[in-house]
Amino acid sequence: MSTPTVQTLETLAGGVTLPQGFRAAGVRAGIKARGLDLALLVSDVPATAAAVFTTNLAQAAPVLVSRQHLVRSGGQARAIIVNSGCANACTGEAGLEVAHGMADAVAAVVGCPVDQVLVASTGVIGVALSLEAIRQGLPLAVSALADDQGSAAAEAIMTTDPFPKEAAARVSIAGRDVAIGGMAKGSGMIEPNMATMLGFVTTDAALPPPLLARALREVVDETFNAITVDGECSTNDCVMILANGASGVTIDETTYDLFADALRTVCLRLALGIVRGGEGATKLITVTVAGGASTAEARRAAKAIANSLLVKTAIHGGDPNWGRLIAVAGRAGVAFDLSRAAVMMGTIVLFKDGRPYDEASSEAAGYLKNDDITVTVNLGVGNEMSTVWTCDLSAEYVRINAEYRT
Amino acid sequence: MSTPTVQTLETLAGGVTLPQGFRAAGVRAGIKARGLDLALLVSDVPATAAAVFTTNLAQAAPVLVSRQHLVRSGGQARAIIVNSGCANACTGEAGLEVAHGMADAVAAVVGCPVDQVLVASTGVIGVALSLEAIRQGLPLAVSALADDQGSAAAEAIMTTDPFPKEAAARVSIAGRDVAIGGMAKGSGMIEPNMATMLGFVTTDAALPPPLLARALREVVDETFNAITVDGECSTNDCVMILANGASGVTIDETTYDLFADALRTVCLRLALGIVRGGEGATKLITVTVAGGASTAEARRAAKAIANSLLVKTAIHGGDPNWGRLIAVAGRAGVAFDLSRAAVMMGTIVLFKDGRPYDEASSEAAGYLKNDDITVTVNLGVGNEMSTVWTCDLSAEYVRINAEYRT
Repeated sequence: MSTPTVQTLETLAGGVTLPQGFRAAGVRAGIKARGLDLALLVSDVPATAAAVFTTNLAQAAPVLVSRQHLVRSGGQARAIIVNSGCANACTGEAGLEVAHGMADAVAAVVGCPVDQVLVASTGVIGVALSLEAIRQGLPLAVSALADDQGSAAAEAIMTTDPFPKEAAARVSIAGRDVAIGGMAKGSGMIEPNMATMLGFVTTDAALPPPLLARALREVVDETFNAITVDGECSTNDCVMILANGASGVTIDETTYDLFADALRTVCLRLALGIVRGGEGATKLITVTVAGGASTAEARRAAKAIANSLLVKTAIHGGDPNWGRLIAVAGRAGVAFDLSRAAVMMGTIVLFKDGRPYDEASSEAAGYLKNDDITVTVNLGVGNEMSTVWTCDLSAEYVRINAEYRT
Repeated sequence: MSTPTVQTLETLAGGVTLPQGFRAAGVRAGIKARGLDLALLVSDVPATAAAVFTTNLAQAAPVLVSRQHLVRSGGQARAIIVNSGCANACTGEAGLEVAHGMADAVAAVVGCPVDQVLVASTGVIGVALSLEAIRQGLPLAVSALADDQGSAAAEAIMTTDPFPKEAAARVSIAGRDVAIGGMAKGSGMIEPNMATMLGFVTTDAALPPPLLARALREVVDETFNAITVDGECSTNDCVMILANGASGVTIDETTYDLFADALRTVCLRLALGIVRGGEGATKLITVTVAGGASTAEARRAAKAIANSLLVKTAIHGGDPNWGRLIAVAGRAGVAFDLSRAAVMMGTIVLFKDGRPYDEASSEAAGYLKNDDITVTVNLGVGNEMSTVWTCDLSAEYVRINAEYRT
């Protein structure tokens, strides 16, 4: 077992094609009204694969197929195909046939077993996805596959996202470079329909399947699962990772932390990009809850605050309305002691030890003019903490989501 | 024990002074910038009293005082004093002294033990309530007390409510009339601060304290606790009931159901008034979840749907977007079977047995132009159901709650 002598973690421009041995493409298959809508990601060799899927019980066809393929392949994958513009969700048996058909078509052109193909879709729920459109777009995607087309793929998975989201990092492990790259699409509602979050990560490290699955699970919990735009969990959410070993570095228990830190850096950048690109969002809000009886309770309170319409509208309006944060903490179903609780916005104390500090109110109102806001609530009962990220709630959110689909 | 021969339940105009032996007043004490802001409700004789209070752990001073008085008095009360414009919440020891001071002042003028006075406040959190203002307003209230001033009291408890909420009913029990009257204030944010729901109900029936407490608990669960505007639970929420026996009718187990039905009628009208008057609301939405494994699971799914921003914005925009309802049902943490699930808007089936009925979409869009909307989701797993009520989410909600307080 090798021990790293130096840890250097660089964050880089680029996305899924930054790691060695991956090619990607983003093309137009005609599923959306306009723009790129079909992404293909291929590893030169079979990669170790892991994924986390939505916990929604109304699971879309591509989720069911990808889950099945990961089991059948024993955690191996060569390719991922993703379409935007149609979620292929609530589409019954016919939808399952389309998702299987997508995997079949990719397996044929890539030349791999069908269970080494993963499938993801995002877009309108309850509308049939045209397998014909996918089949016609696929040759274009295959001919466009290149090791510098990560950005095209990142664009092709967007729905109403205001910008594509890519992130990459490089870390030196045992004297050799390992790269991790990723792309994601976020809670821009789909035409406008359902907030779906998709994330795809590549790395040229090699990892045994259980270690890769553990890294993804642990990192997703602190990144993609720590963000919220509107508290919804879609039928299609998933994060997938492929590790192809092209760097020649194999991650083991001794180098696991270095790898996981780099993966966390990439996933956190993607996750925060999703929040910044949330519908109608004008501010990124970091919610930290301290003083919790347990980490789980701190997380629960932080999520309740991050999903509170009253908190999100107050921050949108620049109102340092600490009473709303206290009230949400009090109803979050966690241990809470009002007489020892505290609220800060940035580093400005607004409530502490049972009494308001309203003299700090105008300073806090000034602080809330920033685009990046941190609020901290101390529950006053213990020493555990948790951080989640959200965005503000604007009238534009309502406009986007109240518009008729057609 | 008497047995009723005829059950007649009439809904009536009027509020807390419709039942015999109650007087009320609504006056201006100068707590709000303008308008009536102090309500006093007095029973001619000591009444049996019961109340339900917010479950928020950040409990306002008047909640703490009223809870204590109910225990000390053994469930007896002569008077309720309510101010709007200031919640007296998160105000520490000083706030508790003000709430006690309010009760002391009322006890002195009414001539009753202090623990027979209940106190409620609604308004801005974290701001000191002026006991001096209350003391100056109280003589005005006492001189205005009359058995036809229920409407003035209903107006004085409003904050940003668009209209006052009163309801009354009369039921014949054992050949004699029993009246029930009520008033409530709702989720119009306060300046704009915190959605507080207050409800006050009177009846001239006599009930033993345990039976009155049981009736209130059971009815509140199906009415005030079955509504949601934005999923928030305030520091000051409470519903109080006084039963003074002036009708000469004593409710026992044999007549309990008649009384509870009448109480439910009054409380449901008040609760629906709160939803209709929700901030920015343009539609009353009745959410029924059927096919649940248990009533509790049906209720949980119904609440999740009623609080979903995506559902509330879709209905606001007149979009029959059934996929959003299915997706919320799937993530609500209850048993759910997509292949047997169904969605209806009004009586129009949009999804059933795993397949969409999009041919009904334009008919459903027409239905959504109504002010009163019913949506029904079948979870496809059992036979239990639950109904809750909510309102749509408009850009006006954001405007109201994002405005700076000053």
